[in-house]
Amino acid sequence: MAEKILIYDTTLRDGSQGEGISLSVEDKLKIASRLDRLGVDYIEGGWPWANPKDMEFFLRAREVIWRQARLVAFGRTRKPGQAAAEDANLLAIKRAGVKVATIFGKSWDLHVTAALGTTLAENLAMIGDSVAFLVDQGLEVIYDAEHFFDGFKANPDYALETLKAAAKAGASWIVLCDTNGGCLPWEIEEAVARVRQEIQVPVGIHAHNDGDLAVANTLAAVTAGCRQVQGTINGFGERCGNADLCSVMPNLELKMGYQCLPPGQLAFLTEVSRYVSEIANVVPAGNQPFVGYSAFAHKGGIHVSAVLKAPDTYEHIRPQQVGNERRVLMSDQAGASNLRCKAEEMGLELNPEREQSIIEGIKELERQGYQFEGADASLELFLRKTTGEYRQQFEVEYVKALVEKRAGQEAISEAIVKLRVGDQVVHTAAEGNGPVNAMDNALRKALEEVFPAIRHMRLTDYKVRVLDEKDATSARVRVLIESRDGSNSWNTVGVSTNIIEASWEALLDSMEYALLKQQQELNKRAAAPGEPY
Amino acid sequence: MAEKILIYDTTLRDGSQGEGISLSVEDKLKIASRLDRLGVDYIEGGWPWANPKDMEFFLRAREVIWRQARLVAFGRTRKPGQAAAEDANLLAIKRAGVKVATIFGKSWDLHVTAALGTTLAENLAMIGDSVAFLVDQGLEVIYDAEHFFDGFKANPDYALETLKAAAKAGASWIVLCDTNGGCLPWEIEEAVARVRQEIQVPVGIHAHNDGDLAVANTLAAVTAGCRQVQGTINGFGERCGNADLCSVMPNLELKMGYQCLPPGQLAFLTEVSRYVSEIANVVPAGNQPFVGYSAFAHKGGIHVSAVLKAPDTYEHIRPQQVGNERRVLMSDQAGASNLRCKAEEMGLELNPEREQSIIEGIKELERQGYQFEGADASLELFLRKTTGEYRQQFEVEYVKALVEKRAGQEAISEAIVKLRVGDQVVHTAAEGNGPVNAMDNALRKALEEVFPAIRHMRLTDYKVRVLDEKDATSARVRVLIESRDGSNSWNTVGVSTNIIEASWEALLDSMEYALLKQQQELNKRAAAPGEPY
Repeated sequence: MAEKILIYDTTLRDGSQGEGISLSVEDKLKIASRLDRLGVDYIEGGWPWANPKDMEFFLRAREVIWRQARLVAFGRTRKPGQAAAEDANLLAIKRAGVKVATIFGKSWDLHVTAALGTTLAENLAMIGDSVAFLVDQGLEVIYDAEHFFDGFKANPDYALETLKAAAKAGASWIVLCDTNGGCLPWEIEEAVARVRQEIQVPVGIHAHNDGDLAVANTLAAVTAGCRQVQGTINGFGERCGNADLCSVMPNLELKMGYQCLPPGQLAFLTEVSRYVSEIANVVPAGNQPFVGYSAFAHKGGIHVSAVLKAPDTYEHIRPQQVGNERRVLMSDQAGASNLRCKAEEMGLELNPEREQSIIEGIKELERQGYQFEGADASLELFLRKTTGEYRQQFEVEYVKALVEKRAGQEAISEAIVKLRVGDQVVHTAAEGNGPVNAMDNALRKALEEVFPAIRHMRLTDYKVRVLDEKDATSARVRVLIESRDGSNSWNTVGVSTNIIEASWEALLDSMEYALLKQQQELNKRAAAPGEPY
Repeated sequence: MAEKILIYDTTLRDGSQGEGISLSVEDKLKIASRLDRLGVDYIEGGWPWANPKDMEFFLRAREVIWRQARLVAFGRTRKPGQAAAEDANLLAIKRAGVKVATIFGKSWDLHVTAALGTTLAENLAMIGDSVAFLVDQGLEVIYDAEHFFDGFKANPDYALETLKAAAKAGASWIVLCDTNGGCLPWEIEEAVARVRQEIQVPVGIHAHNDGDLAVANTLAAVTAGCRQVQGTINGFGERCGNADLCSVMPNLELKMGYQCLPPGQLAFLTEVSRYVSEIANVVPAGNQPFVGYSAFAHKGGIHVSAVLKAPDTYEHIRPQQVGNERRVLMSDQAGASNLRCKAEEMGLELNPEREQSIIEGIKELERQGYQFEGADASLELFLRKTTGEYRQQFEVEYVKALVEKRAGQEAISEAIVKLRVGDQVVHTAAEGNGPVNAMDNALRKALEEVFPAIRHMRLTDYKVRVLDEKDATSARVRVLIESRDGSNSWNTVGVSTNIIEASWEALLDSMEYALLKQQQELNKRAAAPGEPY
């Protein structure tokens, strides 16, 4: 049996300190429920005293957390010179109605005297009293030793004293924090080993990523004996973030032989990572290890044919182990094996004799500035059109975009489109925040009349790249658009010296692709008429 | 004296394998020049055989790399059963005209037999022959042992044999590659230590980030004796990227006491990181360690006052050491001193009492998405307008931009402008390659009637950045324009949800600035009437 490492998620508390991240109570409940389903051991919900929203979360969280996870309320040691039983922050933890409390205290003498303005002895009493008070309330208490490693470097004896104070008062766990995130792995390892000689209570690690080493520091701490790991999904957190559990857990399970989640659950990691990004409204980093969109993307022709023959050649794990997938990118370095692999994904059969001319066609488009590695949907439309199996659902007669800016007034943007759908002509207009938004609105308005299902799709990402900047305003631009409906997302591309035309091309592809997928869905249902809609 | 670690940058080659990164020859020349100024030791420019664009780069690179860095051409060992002197890829390295070559070969027996389809003995001959051939051409040869660590785990003796073949043939460096990026730091350390026992040639490390450990693995390799570090700016690279030199170098210099760059140069790291992101059109990660916008951001309250009293309390290094800055939510003194410094450059005197309100104004614009770092001319216009000393030379009544795209025809773009110059009204129209080009042409046409000197200026660069991609086509965009006349260049910025309006704003600023400078020139000459025109 693999040894268990307890997973302590603090996405909702430390993670929400990240710049640009702001979670409502509803957001937090959604994330907590998903984390519970994933199977983490602890979910730190917030600091009920410092944040009234967090108290509301605790009162409602019981409905969503009922499987594996224990809900944790966060706080700090009592104030200097005050009884623990009268400390508002400790009393708030009690009111939160949880079974586990995490409190942080000072382990670095500099912080005790400079930041807290009290004596070293009083700080030890604050730690002991606060832990004891919560233990007396029947809570499991986790003690977070803030700045432990910096404190250990500055004054090892005192830093260890603070841990002993917490242990003696009944803490179930001592968690060592690299609060400033600047330690090196071997420093962590050495300090953890020393702590384990001095105290009997189980030890955990809480690392920050300021030195780009949070994951390595976490793994080093585990090798030195830590059995609880604190971190956040996607490494969200203040400054450079916390240790990313999406990297820590697969390293521990797949590389080091520990068990973090219930068996089989690691395969939901990618889904959870993207779900949390979605709720937090953060664009996921494509190159994120393990769970990123590009993490198993292969570009070069040689790589692709090798990886198809023997995955070990260019993949350190199987993408499925973390719920991710291999992606083959079409690019000017791609060959026939990339193309065949792509076509198969799309359920298309290519005539082998035509493969070379299709590759030439793609390369020619790429020379013009198209980039299909970020635009699978445009590639699929291109392939279906060249194989002749594509049936166009509407035709555009024209689109016009007009922007007018008068001194002292807001700019006005409008678009006019005229379409033909079968023998029906749709001619309409719309305004927008800009000309592209106006065209999007006008096209959508026109198509919704005939294809009501298009209402469920929306554009979620818009990128512009100027291809030859030196040609300044007459340079070619490439527009990439991401669209989504309930469960799927797809990407399209347009290129032109005219940014309006490039955007229009990507918009059109996006709508055409949505209609194609709807048509395929309808055909599937028609073929299996017994099944419910 | 600190021991030197040689820095080998492969942003232009391995970095450009990253998904969504595509660098033109111009882009590569700009980045190479900036890296040379930073003071890296090696700049790998590309693979001249595999990519014709790279050959063009090598032919032009000598103009921009002439300080510290040695330019490197990349390639692979010769093909099985072929003479090195007849291998097109090795001959291309020779033709690139560089003094340093890096070639990669196979160290993993699985790759030799499965991917390459040759014998283990022939692979050793391929390595030896290829290195020897390039050494004979007078080149310094760096041998990249692809998949070394996986190969070492699978068949340590053979993996070491491949290194010895390269060493014996005269390679100056043996670089150990974790090509799949899945190794753990202690595995790296152990393998490097063994290699150092077996070969005398200096050893380097090339790590990928698939396990989120590329930086840690690089540091571990250095502690085990590697003296060359390969990586990319911002960790760009295939899948999850390469070791990020922006994290590796500060860790080595500031935490571990080595020297990477010439003294003082580390303070340009943040600027270089952002410059490379800008050229590659990649949105920089705010939470990037050391150089990220959020890396030293403090969310206020206790942290801020503590950090102002004693920076060590919440900062692992001083942000200035890497050219970054501390950010706090309250307005700080650095703002005022920056502003004074800028105003002085422009020959402007600021009323000290108004400084605070000007800073607030700039901060408000920055909140809206303006970025004056890359738009000095717009900043100067803003300052002159707020100090009331600016005299507008023309007024715009309106601008209209119209794009029409009919099925099967080229899109048509035209712009109409109506200006007032003194009591003269200019009303004109022009076509263009796109709406922005049409506006540029129309504005120029209108102004040339009154200010003929404007003929000498032209736009030389046009960049678009979507600021909140998640809002898709109604997102705000920032447009940056670079303009030039005979001797000067200047940069302007515009921001709007409407790309046409943002471009118009930057265009107007550019023209206004050109006229301002001409006026200043004329005033100077009027003050010194004896001088020739």
